[in-house]
Amino acid sequence: MNNHEAIGFIDSGVGGLTVVKEALKQLPNERLIYLGDTARCPYGPRPAEQVVQFTWEMTNFLLEKNIKMLVIACNTATAVALEQIKAQLDIPVVGVILPGTRAALKATKNNRVGVIGTAGTIKSGAYEQALQAKAPKTIVTSLACPKFVPIVESNETHSSVAKKVVSETLNPLLLKQLDTLILGCTHYPLLRPLIQNVMGNQVKLIDSGAETVSEVSMLLDYFDLANSLQKKQLSHEFYTTGSAKMFKEIADEWLKLGTLDINQIRLGGTHIE
Amino acid sequence: MNNHEAIGFIDSGVGGLTVVKEALKQLPNERLIYLGDTARCPYGPRPAEQVVQFTWEMTNFLLEKNIKMLVIACNTATAVALEQIKAQLDIPVVGVILPGTRAALKATKNNRVGVIGTAGTIKSGAYEQALQAKAPKTIVTSLACPKFVPIVESNETHSSVAKKVVSETLNPLLLKQLDTLILGCTHYPLLRPLIQNVMGNQVKLIDSGAETVSEVSMLLDYFDLANSLQKKQLSHEFYTTGSAKMFKEIADEWLKLGTLDINQIRLGGTHIE
Repeated sequence: MNNHEAIGFIDSGVGGLTVVKEALKQLPNERLIYLGDTARCPYGPRPAEQVVQFTWEMTNFLLEKNIKMLVIACNTATAVALEQIKAQLDIPVVGVILPGTRAALKATKNNRVGVIGTAGTIKSGAYEQALQAKAPKTIVTSLACPKFVPIVESNETHSSVAKKVVSETLNPLLLKQLDTLILGCTHYPLLRPLIQNVMGNQVKLIDSGAETVSEVSMLLDYFDLANSLQKKQLSHEFYTTGSAKMFKEIADEWLKLGTLDINQIRLGGTHIE
Repeated sequence: MNNHEAIGFIDSGVGGLTVVKEALKQLPNERLIYLGDTARCPYGPRPAEQVVQFTWEMTNFLLEKNIKMLVIACNTATAVALEQIKAQLDIPVVGVILPGTRAALKATKNNRVGVIGTAGTIKSGAYEQALQAKAPKTIVTSLACPKFVPIVESNETHSSVAKKVVSETLNPLLLKQLDTLILGCTHYPLLRPLIQNVMGNQVKLIDSGAETVSEVSMLLDYFDLANSLQKKQLSHEFYTTGSAKMFKEIADEWLKLGTLDINQIRLGGTHIE
């Protein structure tokens, strides 16, 4: 089948670009449309109902672009909104929590798995429940890292402040004998070198986003939606509710796609700078 | 969700047990029902219409057992019957060809991929088409190995005859500079050490069955069918249309599940010994 419709990705900000980067690698024939709700980022500290509402607003924006599959590339939104969005849409909808869970259970040898995420994700207990439903013997240590997303969104991942914040935040995990740590927020792979450095090389970091793209690839096949035609130039689209300039700086550095055209849009009651 | 219904596996004979072995490892909470059409094995040389008919007979037998998902753990049957069975059933149906294809494309570095399978699978061109649709630059070398299944079904994988047959059959592949070889028949992992020895350690062997179980795991989550309750004793069921004794010898050695109860059944016009 040659389906020229795009795969849609939504996130609270730039974090989902770590998923897009994997998609560009694993699914070179697919056209991607990305929307980051940067103006209202972070989602982590917001009440669940509000995250659900914002996630629907993003979803509706992409549905008008006629996407063939939706990836909720945001752990906070997946935790609170995946189930109802998946139930109501007639295209496949994929979240980032179950792929990360499966990968962590495959990776751990000592059954001691850590999860780091936003306050919203950790409070939802979504990873903990998924891990223990599949493997009840897993000892799960969860830790909210509310300072990480703002560092990524302000493009300060290379700063000395970032290094200090990551080190101090993760300190409580060091005595837990973890052999596997789930990066339960799509922003965190942008801090990966700092996180790996603090945790040590013996801890395997699970990038939920990369795992999610394997699920997307499988579902494209399963639902016969994969684009088999390798086109010369795929026109990916990027949208943000916030500053296009800041978004572009991070996207250019992370995706290395050459000159990206970033479009600023308005969602719901979003205030644009 | 706790769904106590089983996952069904069908194969022309004992080959699908290589998929079951992976399922026991990756999906310890799931109950499995297996049917091998040993009496009519091999399927490889049979006309496509007949393979389709036999596959439906196996499918109908398992549907009466109220399975929640069907795995066509046979490449020959997947190649000719997956599409129509998937279209007509209201439970998820998984074949072994696309998982193997995705894994091979992930593994290859030089884009030279080999495929070995039964005459039926190779003649269908299913792997070649799937590989080239996804990655048009792939150079695919396909080879039918009609003597492999009879060796496995007669439990002669450790014999000197097996060694000689594998070596002679695979000889034409040695000059093709393959870095990846798809074991495009679920019987072949039982010959894996012999195949690896002939091909050399630089060639990565792709076990379609193992890859298929990752897809099953993902679809169980996607369709909310995973069994989250770890029961003390799962009563897996095994059926064959052929000799229960011969089937048991191979299954016991391969699965190491302790004493297996193998039930002989009749399908369509199957003659039982």
